[in-house]
Amino acid sequence: MSDKVNLAEKLASFSDHWAPRIVARYNDNEIRLVKVEGEFIWHSHDDTDELFLVIEGALDIELRDRTVHLHPGELFVVPRGTEHRPVSRGGETKLLLIDPRDMPNTGDEATATKAVEI
Amino acid sequence: MSDKVNLAEKLASFSDHWAPRIVARYNDNEIRLVKVEGEFIWHSHDDTDELFLVIEGALDIELRDRTVHLHPGELFVVPRGTEHRPVSRGGETKLLLIDPRDMPNTGDEATATKAVEI
Repeated sequence: MSDKVNLAEKLASFSDHWAPRIVARYNDNEIRLVKVEGEFIWHSHDDTDELFLVIEGALDIELRDRTVHLHPGELFVVPRGTEHRPVSRGGETKLLLIDPRDMPNTGDEATATKAVEI
Repeated sequence: MSDKVNLAEKLASFSDHWAPRIVARYNDNEIRLVKVEGEFIWHSHDDTDELFLVIEGALDIELRDRTVHLHPGELFVVPRGTEHRPVSRGGETKLLLIDPRDMPNTGDEATATKAVEI
């Protein structure tokens, strides 16, 4: 994984939802791409922040006290320990995420969809 | 810095080159935006990888044994300890970087332009 990454090409290579792909690594973190649609579950990550960058579509990141509305070219960092629920109400949304290596996307190994390298 | 970040708005707020701005934080890392033009200096970061994502323009990341050509929507992670020289030959290029907190952009505190929050 020492070559450049074209985000559009990587995104074109898969079509399932809420199944993150690892496209690069930065220190102990994974740069992930994911396609989402509809509602995810409420969850949190106790030990880490999580970065969301919208590439295409629109994402609501619901927090317990407010909702962050993201459009293409907008990013938000969910602070560690903060309950959140990503929701894509208007169809499919394409996201870039930054997460620590092996972090479960649901905050829980038992329910997570493991991120795989592409 | 707990609100969303619109990359285009942040980029429109400054115009100098090779002077990184911090627009968000992810754990102990800084999400930086920078405008570049022409050649930077050869340098390396012994203790960390560095992520480059081109937002607008085109960037050559010269390595000692090859050059990585990046266009909008393409990213590359320079591995720790790898000598590199970013070059924007065709005019101004707008970049998103991920670096550890307080990392000097030249690899050396003495010559670095300190990243500032915006």
